[in-house]
Amino acid sequence: MELTGLSFIGSHRGSRDGSSFQAFAPQTGEPIQPVFRSATSQELERAARLAHEAFASYAQTTGTTRAAFLRRIAEGFESHREELAQRAHLETALPLPRLTGEVTRTANQLRMFAAVVEEGSWVQARIDPALPDRQPLPRPDIRSMLRPLGPVVVFGASNFPLAFSVGGGDTASALAAGCPVIVKAHPAHPGTSELAAAIISEAVIARDLHPGVFSMLFDSGVAIGSALVQHPLIRAVAFTGSLRGGRALMDLAAARPDPIPCFTEMSSGNPVFILPGALRKGPAALAQSLFGSFTLGAGQFCTKPGIIFVAEAPQSLAFRDELKSFVEQAHPFTLLTGGIAREYHRATGSRANQVSLTAEAHLLSEGENGTEPFHAQAKLFTIALDELLRQPDLADEIFGPDTLIVRCGSTQDYLQAARALDGHLTATILGDEEDLAANRELIHILEQKAGRLIFNGFPTGVEVTHAMVHGGPYPSTSDPRFTSVGSLAIYRFARPVCFQNFPQPMLPPELQDENPLNISRLRDGKRE
Amino acid sequence: MELTGLSFIGSHRGSRDGSSFQAFAPQTGEPIQPVFRSATSQELERAARLAHEAFASYAQTTGTTRAAFLRRIAEGFESHREELAQRAHLETALPLPRLTGEVTRTANQLRMFAAVVEEGSWVQARIDPALPDRQPLPRPDIRSMLRPLGPVVVFGASNFPLAFSVGGGDTASALAAGCPVIVKAHPAHPGTSELAAAIISEAVIARDLHPGVFSMLFDSGVAIGSALVQHPLIRAVAFTGSLRGGRALMDLAAARPDPIPCFTEMSSGNPVFILPGALRKGPAALAQSLFGSFTLGAGQFCTKPGIIFVAEAPQSLAFRDELKSFVEQAHPFTLLTGGIAREYHRATGSRANQVSLTAEAHLLSEGENGTEPFHAQAKLFTIALDELLRQPDLADEIFGPDTLIVRCGSTQDYLQAARALDGHLTATILGDEEDLAANRELIHILEQKAGRLIFNGFPTGVEVTHAMVHGGPYPSTSDPRFTSVGSLAIYRFARPVCFQNFPQPMLPPELQDENPLNISRLRDGKRE
Repeated sequence: MELTGLSFIGSHRGSRDGSSFQAFAPQTGEPIQPVFRSATSQELERAARLAHEAFASYAQTTGTTRAAFLRRIAEGFESHREELAQRAHLETALPLPRLTGEVTRTANQLRMFAAVVEEGSWVQARIDPALPDRQPLPRPDIRSMLRPLGPVVVFGASNFPLAFSVGGGDTASALAAGCPVIVKAHPAHPGTSELAAAIISEAVIARDLHPGVFSMLFDSGVAIGSALVQHPLIRAVAFTGSLRGGRALMDLAAARPDPIPCFTEMSSGNPVFILPGALRKGPAALAQSLFGSFTLGAGQFCTKPGIIFVAEAPQSLAFRDELKSFVEQAHPFTLLTGGIAREYHRATGSRANQVSLTAEAHLLSEGENGTEPFHAQAKLFTIALDELLRQPDLADEIFGPDTLIVRCGSTQDYLQAARALDGHLTATILGDEEDLAANRELIHILEQKAGRLIFNGFPTGVEVTHAMVHGGPYPSTSDPRFTSVGSLAIYRFARPVCFQNFPQPMLPPELQDENPLNISRLRDGKRE
Repeated sequence: MELTGLSFIGSHRGSRDGSSFQAFAPQTGEPIQPVFRSATSQELERAARLAHEAFASYAQTTGTTRAAFLRRIAEGFESHREELAQRAHLETALPLPRLTGEVTRTANQLRMFAAVVEEGSWVQARIDPALPDRQPLPRPDIRSMLRPLGPVVVFGASNFPLAFSVGGGDTASALAAGCPVIVKAHPAHPGTSELAAAIISEAVIARDLHPGVFSMLFDSGVAIGSALVQHPLIRAVAFTGSLRGGRALMDLAAARPDPIPCFTEMSSGNPVFILPGALRKGPAALAQSLFGSFTLGAGQFCTKPGIIFVAEAPQSLAFRDELKSFVEQAHPFTLLTGGIAREYHRATGSRANQVSLTAEAHLLSEGENGTEPFHAQAKLFTIALDELLRQPDLADEIFGPDTLIVRCGSTQDYLQAARALDGHLTATILGDEEDLAANRELIHILEQKAGRLIFNGFPTGVEVTHAMVHGGPYPSTSDPRFTSVGSLAIYRFARPVCFQNFPQPMLPPELQDENPLNISRLRDGKRE
């Protein structure tokens, strides 16, 4: 595909009227061709209007129609696997095998949602038949099911240029639910975004859907994104990114004349609690695995373990020394964007200054320093629990290859440490089964602090399954009742609608007595 | 029971330190004994801390334990039926049979949620077993289920002193989900609230639960309510009331350092579309039913039909004349509070002024005027659709016995009228089955505007069932993805939590392989 640098406004392309920008190669900091054009406010208006128009017909499409559409997109991703991965590699410097894997993940996500809507039970159909003889008044026939919310704005994420971006999980789940999507492309990987948008656009045409079902707008700044969230025709927002960016969108959505659901996945320290059994298995192997997890993708994963609680013990010193030496030997990492690199230098520098003022915390080790503007050193900090409780902001998420070891007097202190946590995507317990059984209270506390509890595993690596929860209390997300990964993610974009006393032929098939779609339903509260 | 006028702070009662207030008898405007005391900020702090403490144990109670608790409360309501109804009658002037019926409704709601959590499948358990042989990497075992959010603040509603108040649907669903509740009692029926709170408190003790599971705070103003919504230990809010009040709480919840879910059920015009078949069946009967619906409870129902679309036709004139004459013959209604009465006079007066400036709208008829301060006249307005489209605020909800007939040229105009609607709790279509079949597009539009579509019925009368949706797009509620009536209401107060790689005995019973609770689950996405 030839890149044009222009937005997608339904079946049309954007103009060259907007301001221009380019992607930068993270390894060199050099701009990459071609030049991209930010969308204009007129183009935004057109995209919103088209999405609104498209919703009328797209909301009424069957699960089968939407499944075929999603599978067509999946096939498009797979048939452009190399091209997508190459361009994404150029724009993100993420390793090629990781990016070809991400194409597969993206296609699999689309197919998972295709299967969910094709099967159809996701709509949670409920039927409470009429009770004409009920006293003192008859009960009418009442039936409900989930219906799509309306046009959804999706923000591409910097750290997953495919799986959490233009054709990623947010778009897949919104389209599956029956919502048209307008993507605000992430400006750090516009070429990858254009390729992905072209694939989706082609699928819209091939499946003969209203062109407004999908648009994608470029913008190097925040104007288009802000205006989309405030646009009266937009009904929901999905975002993966920084706490600052996500909170800004939450505030815009909440301040609308008509507030709309805004799901933002933002910031998570992903605490790890090390219990004795984990250290007994060998401090070196544990240190190696943890180092691998917190530097995976240069530490730019939402689920990077950024806070590691270790109780004082002989083996914990050995563990700390091992981790220290892994960090010291680390080559420089290449971050995704100049902005992320600058923020990493600022945040780790500020943490180093802050810990230098106390005897209870210090910078334990640093990796090799890089020479390029997007380079970052691995960093390992340590702090005593008491000091962290006094300065809890020292555990704020830093996006990049660093982590923080929190020294606790004993595993008993873990309860206090866990109670002081704010919301996270994940919380991990490493140990043996006896450790876990001895720490039920810790589990109960962590359950209130995170969306996913992991035993003897690492939080990086988020499976795309039906039971996955990639969510959690604020500030990890805007709303702990939802997830942005896994098939549950579709529930962000649907709402229950109730039909009272409707004649059979006028009911959606999901609610008709003969159950033509053969879906799982609740009848008078019982599964049928 | 002897009324003390004091708040409930867990198992203790509030002090007499706060400012004093009294309820007023709506029929006379006279104050009723005893004197009530607003809670102090220290009492609020204590209630919040107790709720937070209680959550640790209450969140871990089984469905069976919570069901027994809810049933105990239901029994308490039933055994104090007369006392509750008498006091509520004194404070609201609602008819006694309606209020004894409301006790039954309240008890039934509690029992419905008891049955839901006792059965247990509501937690949406999902199991994706490990795939140790998957390439390139094994898949870990992943399981998820819903867990309670944490302490919930419930605001009592003025118009349902029992079913939407202290022990109403919000409290029942939050307690069922495993969340402690702090009720902010509605100051218009504090005696009824105290009786209800005493019943719940007794059940907390009888079932040996942590006393922080339930508190109730009095306040004649907004300080306690605002502080509760902003309190760091509160995790969710449920409110039924005015748009102004609900929006204020939404804004407070969204502006917190850590925004929390805030479900507010606020304002709804409940549009009714009259198709030819309904008029053919007899304009007089139709007018009588509509009159009964919009004046039920003195028009103080969230689901009062406040906007009635009628296409010009000979029978529609007869219908309008019939409705006009029902209104003219109406005796004065007694509203719930002085505030509601003043607002009704202001809003109907303002609407009358506004329509007097145009030839396209007017006040069609008025009922008998009352002599008491809480009295209200029934009012019937009419407006041409074109004029309403120019001045859409003329259809804003007025709480009380009034409605607005919108004259349309033909039923074709209904599409335009429906598209211009904002969010409502309900939308009603009256006609025969042929009418309905000829108006599929109208149904599709209304489905996007309301949470419940009614065919040949009236929106007042909200059944408490599994399929009920008492929700809808803003401004009818803060979030169209939820309902405040019916068993789906529990989902406002729960969030999914995922357990990855947990040993069987450490999993909640809902997620263990042998399925000891015998609940309906999804395994690898398939219902088992």
